[in-house]
Amino acid sequence: MTMVGMTSDHDITTRGTSVAVLGLGAMGRALAAAFLAAGHPTTVWNRSPHKGDELVARGARRAGTAAGAVRSAGLVVLCVVDHAAARSVLDTVTGDLPGRVLVNLTSDTPARARAAASWAAGHAVDYLDGSVMVPVPLVGRPEALILYSGPRAAYDAYEPVLRALGGRSAHVGEDHGLAAVHDLALLDYFYSSISGLLHAFALAGADGVRAADLVPYLDTITGLLPHMAAGAARDIDTGTHPGDDANLGMMAAGVGHVLEWAEHRGLDVRGLRPVKEAYDEAVARGHAAESWTRTIESLRGTGRR
Amino acid sequence: MTMVGMTSDHDITTRGTSVAVLGLGAMGRALAAAFLAAGHPTTVWNRSPHKGDELVARGARRAGTAAGAVRSAGLVVLCVVDHAAARSVLDTVTGDLPGRVLVNLTSDTPARARAAASWAAGHAVDYLDGSVMVPVPLVGRPEALILYSGPRAAYDAYEPVLRALGGRSAHVGEDHGLAAVHDLALLDYFYSSISGLLHAFALAGADGVRAADLVPYLDTITGLLPHMAAGAARDIDTGTHPGDDANLGMMAAGVGHVLEWAEHRGLDVRGLRPVKEAYDEAVARGHAAESWTRTIESLRGTGRR
Repeated sequence: MTMVGMTSDHDITTRGTSVAVLGLGAMGRALAAAFLAAGHPTTVWNRSPHKGDELVARGARRAGTAAGAVRSAGLVVLCVVDHAAARSVLDTVTGDLPGRVLVNLTSDTPARARAAASWAAGHAVDYLDGSVMVPVPLVGRPEALILYSGPRAAYDAYEPVLRALGGRSAHVGEDHGLAAVHDLALLDYFYSSISGLLHAFALAGADGVRAADLVPYLDTITGLLPHMAAGAARDIDTGTHPGDDANLGMMAAGVGHVLEWAEHRGLDVRGLRPVKEAYDEAVARGHAAESWTRTIESLRGTGRR
Repeated sequence: MTMVGMTSDHDITTRGTSVAVLGLGAMGRALAAAFLAAGHPTTVWNRSPHKGDELVARGARRAGTAAGAVRSAGLVVLCVVDHAAARSVLDTVTGDLPGRVLVNLTSDTPARARAAASWAAGHAVDYLDGSVMVPVPLVGRPEALILYSGPRAAYDAYEPVLRALGGRSAHVGEDHGLAAVHDLALLDYFYSSISGLLHAFALAGADGVRAADLVPYLDTITGLLPHMAAGAARDIDTGTHPGDDANLGMMAAGVGHVLEWAEHRGLDVRGLRPVKEAYDEAVARGHAAESWTRTIESLRGTGRR
């Protein structure tokens, strides 16, 4: 994909690159603060202007309109509640965007990211869709991960500036939906994990064990995950699921004990029962001696009985 | 709880303490190997004797009967497939156990651990129930976590010997069910996390993203978990759920996007939908501005509409 209309009159490798931030919710404010901290002249705009007060005190310029903010900068970062809100802002600045790069860090689905990209292409706007993968307090830190998708050339042109938002900045593909795909997949893992954590606290609590008393042992589980994830990815990408000491049949028994006790204690097991069923289904398909990664066939919706 | 019948004629602080291991599945063999590596004279027994061949080659003594193994040692470790199998072994050695400490590392539910403790009390057997919290290859390593419950005095007496099985050895309470409670709670977290991981791989794969391409970003999620777990435990133990930048209402929207896209891609969402519903229920109860930890009320089975 070629750059639609980016001009070369932006000094994009120095601290002096001007940026505009549209949308000053908690995340938008953190993004603007990170640009300011990195020395970039930053113009901010929000529908309710007072949200920018603290940023102005730190040196930001406040624009009276979104169009005014856009016209001040080569890089325009948008972060609002969802793509519907994003579109209502973009409709007011469409004519001002060509020649700049629009980076939309609004979280939403891949389909809506792709629809936004179509809109941008129709208006000669260089567009990147991105996902901030860390909570607000970590924005701007060296370990903060932010994923981008869309034209590689637009990313490369502003990558030194975008790095102000997080030290771990990555371009994951030209398809504008891919940042959101990564975002949702990582959130899938995140929400499942923290829900399982609360379920574990509830299960322990049913026998009088305080959550704080379980915490010191959690690292034994989290410590296993990186190694397991790497092995699981290998199995899944190759479509082979070799068993080892902890085979699927043994693990089905393990999760069966958890389910049995959770039911005994009256916990809600609507989330846990399908986990057990995925193991049972893989056993029923004859995979008891293979790896637990076989259960992905149930999760894909292709292996249910 | 007092020690029922332990005598003081065991030299339990030196490398010379004799131990017996009953049950030589993959975990039992790893336990025996760890005792041998630590210099403890180790007698092994298994229903199918050949399972002990490699251990005998490393210096273990093979007993022809379980009772013979028990009589050789002050500390008797049992590890079989479940408590039903454990009981069938114990019934053959009941008269030989008094005066020794029986440690049952067979995984099962708290109820069956407590039933085994009742059986032991009825036969004057000093009994500890335990759970090995690491996979077989990590047994005997400094970072290996093994949890024990039952009479503290029995644990303290053999703690230096038991440490051969894992450097992180912990007594979690006099109630014999508590090791299994911790075990099942940690497994609850474990199975939920790895199921969520596979679901994430399936979701990314539906848009052509290889699992291996997602792996480098997983640490952004796993890196958040220790801090979140400590905060969540505080909320849950105190029953207060103060909101912060990432409140429950915002997170409900996030998990909603994940669910929407997973359904769009035809994935099985039977495990994910209840996660979203727990957030929706907490919002419906008026907790949108509070912490995500409010969702534990749904998981406890006490907060469902």
